[in-house]
Order: sequence, then structure tokens, then C-alpha cells
Amino acid sequence: MPKISAKGHAMPESPIRKLVPFAEIAKKRGTKVFHLNIGQPDIKTPQVALDAIKNNNLEVLAYSRSEGSEEYRIKIANYYSKHNVNVKHDDIIVTTGGSEALLFTFGSIMDADDEVIIPEPFYANYNGFSTASGVNIVPVMSSIDTGFALPAIEEFEKLITPKTKAILICNPGNPTGYLYSKEEIKQLAAIVKKYDLFLVADEVYREFAYDGLTHHSVLAENDLDDHAIVIDSVSKRYSMCGARIGCIVSKNKAFMATAMKFAQARLSPPTYAQIASEAALDTPDSYFTDVIEEYTERRNTLISELKKIDGVKVATPKGAFYCIAELPIADADTFAQWLLEEFNLNGETIMVAPAAGFYSTPGVGLNQIRIAYVLKKDDLISSANILKAALVAYKAINEVATV
Amino acid sequence: MPKISAKGHAMPESPIRKLVPFAEIAKKRGTKVFHLNIGQPDIKTPQVALDAIKNNNLEVLAYSRSEGSEEYRIKIANYYSKHNVNVKHDDIIVTTGGSEALLFTFGSIMDADDEVIIPEPFYANYNGFSTASGVNIVPVMSSIDTGFALPAIEEFEKLITPKTKAILICNPGNPTGYLYSKEEIKQLAAIVKKYDLFLVADEVYREFAYDGLTHHSVLAENDLDDHAIVIDSVSKRYSMCGARIGCIVSKNKAFMATAMKFAQARLSPPTYAQIASEAALDTPDSYFTDVIEEYTERRNTLISELKKIDGVKVATPKGAFYCIAELPIADADTFAQWLLEEFNLNGETIMVAPAAGFYSTPGVGLNQIRIAYVLKKDDLISSANILKAALVAYKAINEVATV
Repeated sequence: MPKISAKGHAMPESPIRKLVPFAEIAKKRGTKVFHLNIGQPDIKTPQVALDAIKNNNLEVLAYSRSEGSEEYRIKIANYYSKHNVNVKHDDIIVTTGGSEALLFTFGSIMDADDEVIIPEPFYANYNGFSTASGVNIVPVMSSIDTGFALPAIEEFEKLITPKTKAILICNPGNPTGYLYSKEEIKQLAAIVKKYDLFLVADEVYREFAYDGLTHHSVLAENDLDDHAIVIDSVSKRYSMCGARIGCIVSKNKAFMATAMKFAQARLSPPTYAQIASEAALDTPDSYFTDVIEEYTERRNTLISELKKIDGVKVATPKGAFYCIAELPIADADTFAQWLLEEFNLNGETIMVAPAAGFYSTPGVGLNQIRIAYVLKKDDLISSANILKAALVAYKAINEVATV
Repeated sequence: MPKISAKGHAMPESPIRKLVPFAEIAKKRGTKVFHLNIGQPDIKTPQVALDAIKNNNLEVLAYSRSEGSEEYRIKIANYYSKHNVNVKHDDIIVTTGGSEALLFTFGSIMDADDEVIIPEPFYANYNGFSTASGVNIVPVMSSIDTGFALPAIEEFEKLITPKTKAILICNPGNPTGYLYSKEEIKQLAAIVKKYDLFLVADEVYREFAYDGLTHHSVLAENDLDDHAIVIDSVSKRYSMCGARIGCIVSKNKAFMATAMKFAQARLSPPTYAQIASEAALDTPDSYFTDVIEEYTERRNTLISELKKIDGVKVATPKGAFYCIAELPIADADTFAQWLLEEFNLNGETIMVAPAAGFYSTPGVGLNQIRIAYVLKKDDLISSANILKAALVAYKAINEVATV
């Protein structure tokens, strides 16, 4: 039998999706499963985007331009201008989700065995994209005890080698919910200039900043045009995860010309989804006011419920819609599977993402889970109650097992 | 300034799309451009697919499963059964176009510097996917003089090394229009079994077989389950290039489990496009009868017109909707650009794809172009007349230049 590649073997399973088969068996058994594992919001997609699709009059579903239509990119540039980011449509390449934006970026700036420094825990699929691209993630540890704030800049400097090509941040952070301050962004800007690196910022949760805090884009920094690359997506902003539309934004012309070659090879981003995404830019501001209010309430509910549970540690997220929770267990992989296979509270259980997959340092985060608070308040309360009961039951089983 | 990767520098420009800026300038000048450069059919997308989108009632545009919805994959398996291919839905992963299917396949079966043997000329973007994946194409030459038939199997055997992991064919062929016979498929099956390689077949033009000839899928071969991988796409079949939906089909479980990890990392294929693609499977057979009739007529028209032009050599394609034409010129890149920048016949010109980008052997195919006969018969006649006049004018200019 012909062999699978070493790269194929090394590709990680998604910690967000690998337990799906267990969830499906639980559902077939009649157990209700609350999905805290995946950032799939239950928020309605803006009507203007849904209508644009229903009212489209295409007769031939043709390729678009590889970089996305000019009209759409002009509107995206206009969107950024409202967020204090001054870019032109030529500084934008439309991609098939933020995923493809990251793959094109990795390919354009790194060769085999090159390194990208990322504060961990980080979005789990960065592991997959780095493996697929043949490059290495060098993690710099952020801690639950500081709410996952930016590690000291000296910690970054210790890790920089000739193989280091970039620093990658996710801001606001998935899975941490941490929102970098302007001061932290300036520190990162200074270090990438000092060492001549790219600063790649995954800003797909830009709008999701709470408590009156403001998001600071790397593109708003002065004198960073050659270094700053933004990864963006409509997925979370407009609750359009299934569109698979994102973009790369950078004023570095050599970088953009290179990313464009990757874009041409795959021909174009999906046409229907571009129509919906372009229309979504006309979403009224009130939509976001309502959404931010809803997520703030969900966050407050979840965090306060989690803090009531013995032995659970959690940092209050300031943005996005995730948090990392540390649990009084040894291994969250086993626990998360057990929740689906063995446990229910009045016929209900929860699906969570084991956090180890959000780290690249082996053995770290084993007792942590990521929770996406994308469900209604009542469901989050039910979920917290399930977690509380499950931890008691799990402890009892393990005590029996070790006697 | 931070540096672009060697991989980024090595990424080829698309020979199909790189001349787009010159075409746009020509159009702004008022010149009508016939697009023979790209396989974007003018055929109407089946109404059943367009209607499915207009009538969809999604309120949240959510992620789908990474492998595509079960319902859609069951329907795809049923589609294959009508083409003498017996697969289950578990043997199918839905991808974002055939492009992504190839990227996942390359990643799953090849490591850095591994080799895939491909008869050339081949679909230009194979060059891009191999560069992006860090693997090498080893070309085996097919010739315009044999209509681009399969090279002798001994020619493949000469090229096999321990780094060879797969043979890749496109059947029917883009850019050659060649349709492999059952005997040729059996020869390939025998060699991949002998040397324990994968046989990857890009069969996106399956339905486009002319003159009563039949397409033979590698999946229909006995005893090839561990070796055969099919790359597929709805793009050409249903004139849905902009959907960006394809799939990987294989009965090799280890391969599919590996490809699934790449699929999970990018979350899911586009949701709207899956709805359209699933509906497209209900397209009545009469649609294909009409389309095949139309393309047969276009092919006959184009080939007969091209054969009338002095110094033009062309092989009659038996499938797909492309042909390679050899021209009495030195460099098709320069000529194709000149057609857009300098030439017009009564205010009209043509855009063609220089064929050198469809080879990986340097210096080969320089006097060839790829023509996509995706335009109406009258436009193809006009295009051939433009080519004829252009070759005369170009010859005159070059004679003056060399005097």
C-alpha cells in the first residue's frame, strides 16, 4: 500500500472537531448536547446579506477575480476607514475564509523550517496551517494568571533566531478572549521593526471588544507598512461562518504580489459568498450594538457561573467569545470524551474543546478547556450546571478507580 | 524590509490570468476581447441549482461539516454509481474546488522534495500547487504529433525514483483535450501497483467526451482501491466555476483520514455553494446532451478554422474544451501580450494562454498557446480570423524588426 506522508501523519486533529463522532452518538442516544466547542454563533446573519443571495440574478455562476471583485474590495477599504485603518482596495486580497488568508501568508513569508513566534494558547488551527506549510511555531507562553496578557517583550527576544520570520497574534484572542492594549501593539511594532520581521495580526474578532475597550489594529500603527499583515474574515463579524470569505490586508507591495500568485493558483474565492459578504457591509450599526450587548451578557453569565464551581479557574475575557477554563482534572481530552460518552444531567451534556490543542508546547494546557459562549444565556447557565455536576461525578469515579 | 520566502518567489504566475491587466487596458481602449484564455464557459448554470440558492431559507449561514454534509455526499456517491464507479459517501470529502482537493492530496501523500510524475503539458496550476506544497513535478513529455496520447510506460518507469510518490493525470486533459483509453488507464494502474504509487486522476471534465467515446475512471479499475484518488469539481460540469466546490474520492482509508485533517484545519467548504452543488445533481440528462452537442460543434468549428491558418498545428481534442495550438512564432508570451496591447482587427482582439506555463520543462511549449473553446460558434470563427490576421501582422513586424 502506498504511504501517507510524514506531513500527513504530523497534521493535528482539530481539538474543536475531533470529538464530533462522540457527540453524534450521544445525540442518537437521545442526549441533548450543548455545543460550547465551536465558535459557531447562533446569532442571525444580517438580513441584508441573506436577501442579497435570495435576490441575486446570476445565470452563470462564474469565477470572480482571484483577488475578489474590485467593487467588494473598495467597500472593504471603506469599512476599514471607519476603524481608523487607511487602506486602498489594492491592499486587499479576498480569500476563502481567514484560513486561506493565513495559508497564503505563511507561504509568502516562510520557507521549510522557518519559524513564527506565537503567544500560546493560540487558535488551534495555526498548528494545522504551520504543519501544512512545513514551518514551525515557536510558542511564547501567556498565562491564565495574567488573563493571557502579552508576555514580556524580552521573552520574545529570547526566541528570535535567523529562522524567525514573523510574530503572529490573534487580537482579540481566540481562545483567550484577551484584547491587546495600544501599548502592547506598540511593543510588538517596535520588536518587528528592530528584527525586521512581519507582524501578522488575526483580527477577525475586531468588533467583539467589551467593557468600553477599543480594538487597536496593527494597520493603524505608523511606520509599520512593510511589516503589518492583517488576516480578516466575515465569519464571526456577521455570523457568516459558512460563507468562507476572508481577506489579507497589507501595504507591503512585494508581499501582496506574492500572495496574489497563491490566489491565482486556486482561481477565485466563492462567488455567492462574495455577494453575501459585500451586502453584509451595509449591515446597520445597531446590529453590532445589539450583538455586543448580547455577548457581554453571555460572557458575564458564563464567567460568573464558572467562578461558582469549585476548583475551576477562569480569566474574564475582554473580547471575542471564548474563554479558557482550568478544571480540577488531569486530562481534558479524556474528560471531554467522557462528557459525551458517559455523562448526562437530566438527559443533557456539553461538548467542549480540550485546550491542549491550542498550545504547541507538549504537555501544557492538559487540564484546560476552551468554551465558546455562542449560546443563549439560559443554555450557558444549563451548561455551567452540567459542568459542575460532571466534575463532581468525574471526581467520584476517579477516586473509586484509584482506591 | 522583511523578506519574501523562496517559495513565494518560486510561485508561478498563472499563464491563464497573468495577462488580465493588459486585457483590461485593451477593453478601456474600446477593443473587444474574446476570452479564449480561461475555461469559463458561457453555458447557463442549471436552473435547479440557481433556484436552490434563490429559495434557500437559511437564517444563520453556519459552518458545514468539514467533509461536506452527509446528504450531499450520499447524492455524490449516487452520481458516481451512474458512471460505473462504486463508492460510498464515506469515500468522499467535499472540498473548496478541485484546487483544494489537489492541495489536500499533495499534502497527504508527499513530503518536501518528493516527486509526482505528470504527463506534460498539464493544467498550469499543478505547478502552483506543487510549489506551494514544496514538492517537485517530474514531467513526462506527450506530443502534439500523437494528439498528446499517454507516453510509453517505459518513459514513466525511467523517471521513477524512491522520491516518486504518485502519478497524476488529467482525464480528459486540460490543456490537451486528450481522453485516455481504457487500455491506457490499465497501463497506469499496472505501473502504480508495480511501484506502489498513488494514481491521482483529475476527472473534472468526465462528461466532456466527444465522438461517442467513453470516459474511464481510475476508480472503476479492479484491485486499485489503495492507489486510486480522484479529484473532482462541479465547476465545468454544471458551469458553476464560481461555486468553488469539488471533492476528493478514494477508498484508501488511511489517505482519507489524513486528508480529513487538512479539511478540519480549514473548517468547511462554502455553505451556499454546497446547496447549489447538491441541487445541481438533479440536473436533467438532457442538459448534458445539449452541452456535449454544443461543445462538439464548437470544437469542430475551432479546429477546422485553425487548420485553415498557415503554419498553425493543432491536434483534435476528444474531450474537455481546450486545445493546444502550435503557432509560427518564437515566443507565445510576447505574442499574447502584443495581441492585447498592439493588435486589433476591426476593434476586436483575442486573449489566449501562453502554453509554456502548462509545462514544467523549461523552454518547452514556447511557440504554443492554449485555447479554451468556451465561446459561441460565431465568436470562435471571429477569434480564428483575428488570430490569422494577427499572425500575418506579427510576422510583418518581426521581419521589419530583423531587417
